[in-house]
Amino acid sequence: MAEQEDVIELAKRRGFFFGANGAYGGVAGFYTYGPNGAAVKDNLESAWRDRFTVRQGNMEIEAPTIMPEAVFEASGHLDGFDDMLVECPECGESHRADHLIEDNTGIEEAESLPIAEVEELIREHDLRCPSCDAELAGEPVEDFNLMFETSIGPGSGQPGYMRPETAQGIFVEFPRLKEYARNRLPFGVTQIGPAYRNEISPRKGIIRVREFTQAELETFIDPEEDEPPLHEVEDVEVTLYPADEQEADDGEAYTTTVGEAVDEGVIGSDWVGYYLGVAQGWYERVGVDMDRFRFRQHLPGELAHYAADCWDAESEVGGDWIEITGFAYRSDYDLTKHAEHSGESFTVFKQYDEPKTVERAAVDPDMATLGPEFGGDAGAVAEALQTLAERDPDAFDADEVTVEVDGESYSVDTDVANFSVETVTENGEHITPHVVEPSFGVDRIVYTVIEHAYRVDEVDGEERTYLALDPEMAATDAAVFPLVSNDDRLLDLADEVTGDLRKAGLAVEYDDSGSIGRRYRRQDEVGTPFCLTVDRDGIEGDGPDTVTVRERDSARQVRVPVSEVADEIAALLDPETERAFDALAAAYDEIATDVETA
Amino acid sequence: MAEQEDVIELAKRRGFFFGANGAYGGVAGFYTYGPNGAAVKDNLESAWRDRFTVRQGNMEIEAPTIMPEAVFEASGHLDGFDDMLVECPECGESHRADHLIEDNTGIEEAESLPIAEVEELIREHDLRCPSCDAELAGEPVEDFNLMFETSIGPGSGQPGYMRPETAQGIFVEFPRLKEYARNRLPFGVTQIGPAYRNEISPRKGIIRVREFTQAELETFIDPEEDEPPLHEVEDVEVTLYPADEQEADDGEAYTTTVGEAVDEGVIGSDWVGYYLGVAQGWYERVGVDMDRFRFRQHLPGELAHYAADCWDAESEVGGDWIEITGFAYRSDYDLTKHAEHSGESFTVFKQYDEPKTVERAAVDPDMATLGPEFGGDAGAVAEALQTLAERDPDAFDADEVTVEVDGESYSVDTDVANFSVETVTENGEHITPHVVEPSFGVDRIVYTVIEHAYRVDEVDGEERTYLALDPEMAATDAAVFPLVSNDDRLLDLADEVTGDLRKAGLAVEYDDSGSIGRRYRRQDEVGTPFCLTVDRDGIEGDGPDTVTVRERDSARQVRVPVSEVADEIAALLDPETERAFDALAAAYDEIATDVETA
Repeated sequence: MAEQEDVIELAKRRGFFFGANGAYGGVAGFYTYGPNGAAVKDNLESAWRDRFTVRQGNMEIEAPTIMPEAVFEASGHLDGFDDMLVECPECGESHRADHLIEDNTGIEEAESLPIAEVEELIREHDLRCPSCDAELAGEPVEDFNLMFETSIGPGSGQPGYMRPETAQGIFVEFPRLKEYARNRLPFGVTQIGPAYRNEISPRKGIIRVREFTQAELETFIDPEEDEPPLHEVEDVEVTLYPADEQEADDGEAYTTTVGEAVDEGVIGSDWVGYYLGVAQGWYERVGVDMDRFRFRQHLPGELAHYAADCWDAESEVGGDWIEITGFAYRSDYDLTKHAEHSGESFTVFKQYDEPKTVERAAVDPDMATLGPEFGGDAGAVAEALQTLAERDPDAFDADEVTVEVDGESYSVDTDVANFSVETVTENGEHITPHVVEPSFGVDRIVYTVIEHAYRVDEVDGEERTYLALDPEMAATDAAVFPLVSNDDRLLDLADEVTGDLRKAGLAVEYDDSGSIGRRYRRQDEVGTPFCLTVDRDGIEGDGPDTVTVRERDSARQVRVPVSEVADEIAALLDPETERAFDALAAAYDEIATDVETA
Repeated sequence: MAEQEDVIELAKRRGFFFGANGAYGGVAGFYTYGPNGAAVKDNLESAWRDRFTVRQGNMEIEAPTIMPEAVFEASGHLDGFDDMLVECPECGESHRADHLIEDNTGIEEAESLPIAEVEELIREHDLRCPSCDAELAGEPVEDFNLMFETSIGPGSGQPGYMRPETAQGIFVEFPRLKEYARNRLPFGVTQIGPAYRNEISPRKGIIRVREFTQAELETFIDPEEDEPPLHEVEDVEVTLYPADEQEADDGEAYTTTVGEAVDEGVIGSDWVGYYLGVAQGWYERVGVDMDRFRFRQHLPGELAHYAADCWDAESEVGGDWIEITGFAYRSDYDLTKHAEHSGESFTVFKQYDEPKTVERAAVDPDMATLGPEFGGDAGAVAEALQTLAERDPDAFDADEVTVEVDGESYSVDTDVANFSVETVTENGEHITPHVVEPSFGVDRIVYTVIEHAYRVDEVDGEERTYLALDPEMAATDAAVFPLVSNDDRLLDLADEVTGDLRKAGLAVEYDDSGSIGRRYRRQDEVGTPFCLTVDRDGIEGDGPDTVTVRERDSARQVRVPVSEVADEIAALLDPETERAFDALAAAYDEIATDVETA
C-alpha cells in the first residue's frame, strides 16, 4: 500500500495538487490543482455528470457561492454548523476538542458528544495542547461556526456567507426549479461547485480542507407515491457496515446485494438503497479500489436531526477510512424550513387521480356587527371563528360560540358568524416533497483515485513508480516521444503520429526532452496509459514505418505500423471495444521487457 | 434587435438564468444559471478550453477562490482596487460617483478621474440621488475596496479575500508552475473559475454582478526573445476602435487585418495582436454577432499603470457596448511584485546560446582587522565594500577606500579590503518573464451569445420567438416528440429514435407534454436546433417508418426514415461535414411551412 507522503510528494512534483500560496508560507486547508490534477478532476466531474445528471435525466444548475444570511437562518447552518474549539491558554493555538479526544482516547465520533461531556473528558484524560503540551483541563470548549462570513455591498453592508454545501443553492430556488420540471415529481437537480468550511485545524493534506468541490444531487420525491427503479440495481453487490455491526463487539462490514439489504431493512430507505447501487458502479468506473471501500451507516448519534437514514461511502486511504460521499434521506426538512422563513411556497400541487368531494366548514362573519362590538380585535375574532369552524363544526350548533384571542374570550351569536358547510371538489393538494441526497466530495474522490492507483514495481531491474489510473481519468491518453531531436524524418513521423492521435479525439502529450527512460518515468508517474516512441529502427528496412507502443502497467512494448497506430490506441482506450494489449502483442512484434512486481 | 427585458424574461422562464435567492427577496448582483443556462455556459467553457488551453498547448490549473491578504498586498488590490462611492445624506443609499457623472453629463470614463475632480463635477452639475433626489453636492466621495473580505481560521483568524481575478492564483504559483513547464519560456497557464467584486451598485442584470466566472490565460514570455506565431492570424479581419479614433471628433471603428494593425503600430504588442486574432475566430465560433462586436483600445487614462497596451473586446447588447474580454500586456509587474513581497524567486534561468566570459570585481575583506576596528558595523562595512567594488572598481586603485553605512563614513586600507577582479563564465541569467493576458468574462459572453441569437419571426401566421444558437452552444441538440401519449407503437418508436440519437453522442430532450405547437415553442426558445416528431403518418402505409425533422431557424420540415435519422442529425450538427438542411430537404419529402421574418 502506498505511503501517503509518497503520494503527496508525487502529486506536488507531477502537477496533481499542492498547498496553495506556498510563496507566502501557505495557508492551511487551501490546495491548488496543477495541470494533471485539474485534468483528473475535470474527468471525474465529467464522469459524475454523465452518470448522475445526463443518464438519470436530472437538471444541472449553477448557483452563486456567496449567499445571504436569511438562507442559513432557515437551513440551520447559522446556529448549528459548529465545531468544538478549545484554545490553548499558553500558546493561544486553537484545536478541535473532538479530535483531541479521538486522537488520545479510544472514543470515536466525539463530534456527537455534548460540550459539557467533552470538557469533562479533557479533564479526565488530562489532555494537553498538541503544539506546546500545556494543560487543557479546565479550558472552556466553545462552538465555532464553520461558515466563512463576508459582507455584501458598501458600508456595513449585509452579512453573507460562503455556502457550506452546494445543496442550499438548489433548495432555495425550488419554487422556480419545480416550474422547469413542469411541476411533476419526482425530479432531480444537480450542482458541481465549490463549498467552504472554515475548519479549525485542517489536516491530512487534501482530505480536510477549507475550500473544496462538491457534486450534489437533490432528488425531490412524493414520499407516498414515488419509488426508485430499485430493480436496476437490486443485484449489485455492496460492502455494508451497518450501525449495529459498528456497535457490536465483533461486528464488521459484510458483502450483500442492494436488494437484500433493502428487503431486510438494513438500508432503511428504498431511495438511499437505489443510490448506493448506482454509486457503487460509478466508484468502480472511476477507479476506486473496491477492496478498500465500504458503505457505513451513520450511528444514531451521528444522524442529523432531520435525517431518517444516512450512509457514507468510505474509502481507505493512508490506513484511515474517510468519507467520500454522504447519502441522506433529508425528508421535507429543507423545503419546509425555507417555506417558513421566506413565506414563499415550496410545495408541488399533486393532482388526485380523481377529483375528491369534501365537505368544508366555513364562516362568513357579519363584520358590520363584529366591528363595532370588538373594535381592533374584530379581524382576529373572525379568523378564530374560521379556525374553530374547521376544527369543531359542531360548536356552531349552539346559539352562541366563544373563541379566544390573545387570552381574551369573545362570544359571538351563531347567526352573526354565518356558519355553513359547503361541499367542494378538490383536484389535488399541495405537498412538500421529500429530498434524497447523494453528496459527493470531489477532492477526496480525486485523492482516493490517485492513491489507489499508486504502484511501485521493477522494470528491467530498476524500480519505478506509476499510477494505474483508469484511462477515463488519466490526464493524458498517450504520449509521443521522438527518440532523438536532430533527425528530421523522425520528427516528421512523430508529428504525424501526434496529429493522427489528436484527430482520433485523444489527449496527447508530445515530449522530446531527456532520455527515453526519463520520459517513461514522467508519463508513468502521471498515469499516461500508452507511450509511443518513434525511433530509427521503425523507419529503416523495407517494411512499413512503425513506432513502439508501450503499455503503462505491464511496461510491455509492441511495434505497430504508423498507419494503424491511432486506431489501435483508440480501440485500447475505448471501454466498449474490450480490446486488450494482449491482442496487440499477438498481432504485431513484441519487444522483450522484464517486469517484476515489487 | 432584441429588447433586453424580453431576453431576460425568456432567460428566467426557460431556465437560462435568474436573480438568485428570489424567495428571500434576492440580493443584487448574484445570479443562478438554470439547467439551460448552465449547459450553454458549460459548452462555452469547453469551447474556450479547446481553443485557449488544448490547441494552444497551455496548462490549466484550479486554484482556491479564497486567498490570504499577503497576495493582494503584493498585487496592489488591497490598496488600489477601489470604486468611488458617494452616500446620499437623505436616504443613505450608496452610489458609484463615476456612474452618476457618466449618466448625467456627457463625460465618459469618469472612473479614471481623481476624487477631487469627481466631487467638483457633482457640485457643478448639481447631481442628485437617483433613489430619493436629494442633493449630493458637497457630499464626500470615498474609495471603497471591491474585494469581499473574510476571516480564515478560528478566533479573530487571519484576513482572507475572495479573489477579484483568477489570475492571482496563477501568478502566486509561478515558482512551481515554471517547473511543470521545465523552466522553458514561453508557456501559458489557464484557469476557468469564479471571481468576485463587491460592486457598489450592481446593475444591468447579469452584466455587472458580484460573483462571476473568468477564463484567463497568462502567457509567460521572455520579452527579448519570444515572438508569437503572428503569421497564423495576420490575415484575420478585425474591427478596431483605437484610442486616437475614440479621441477624435469624427473618429470611428474600422476594419483592418491583424497583420496590418501590428505593422502600423496601431496594436502596440505583437502578442496582444496575436491573441486578438485568435480570439476573433473564437467569438465567431461561439455565435457572437460580429456586426455588433469590436476591439476597443484603452485610452491612456484607463490603462493600468503596469500595462503597456490594452484592448477590450466589446459586444453590443441592449444598445450598449460592454467589455467581454480584456487583452493586456502586463509586463513583469505581477511577478516582480510577488517576488518583492514574498522574498521568493519568480524568475526563469535563461541559458545563453554560448557561455559568456565576464569580469567580476569582488572584495574579500580581512575581518580580523575590520572586526576590532568597526565592531558591530564590520559586517555592514564589508557589504558596502562589495557594493562599491561592483559599482566603481577604480576606487580600489587608491591606498584607501571610504564607504558610507547609515550616514557614517568608514575608511579602509585597500590591502585589508582584498580587492580583486575575477574572470567568470556565465551560462545564462535569471530573468523575470513578462505576462500577456487575455481575460474573458464568461457570463457576459454567455449573455451576448443568447441576446445575439434572439429572434422573432412568424411561422404559419403566428409570431414565434427562437434562439438561433450555434449547435455547439445549444443546451440540447435535438428534441423528440411522440405526437400522442396513448399509442404504444408510436411511443416505442420515439424511444428508439431517442436511443439512436443518444448513442450518436447527442444531448436529446424527450418531451411528451402539451400540444406539438407548445413543444415547438418551448424548444425554439431554448434554441434546440432540431425537433423530431413521431406521428401516425410515419408508421402507416407500406414504406419504411419515418419521423418529421424540423429545423429551428427555418421551421422547415422533412420526413426522414427512422433508420437514417440519427446519422442525418449527427451530420447536420457536425461543422466538419458541412451538411445543410437543404440537402436533407432534397433527399427526402419536405412538408410545406410558411415562414415570415417579422
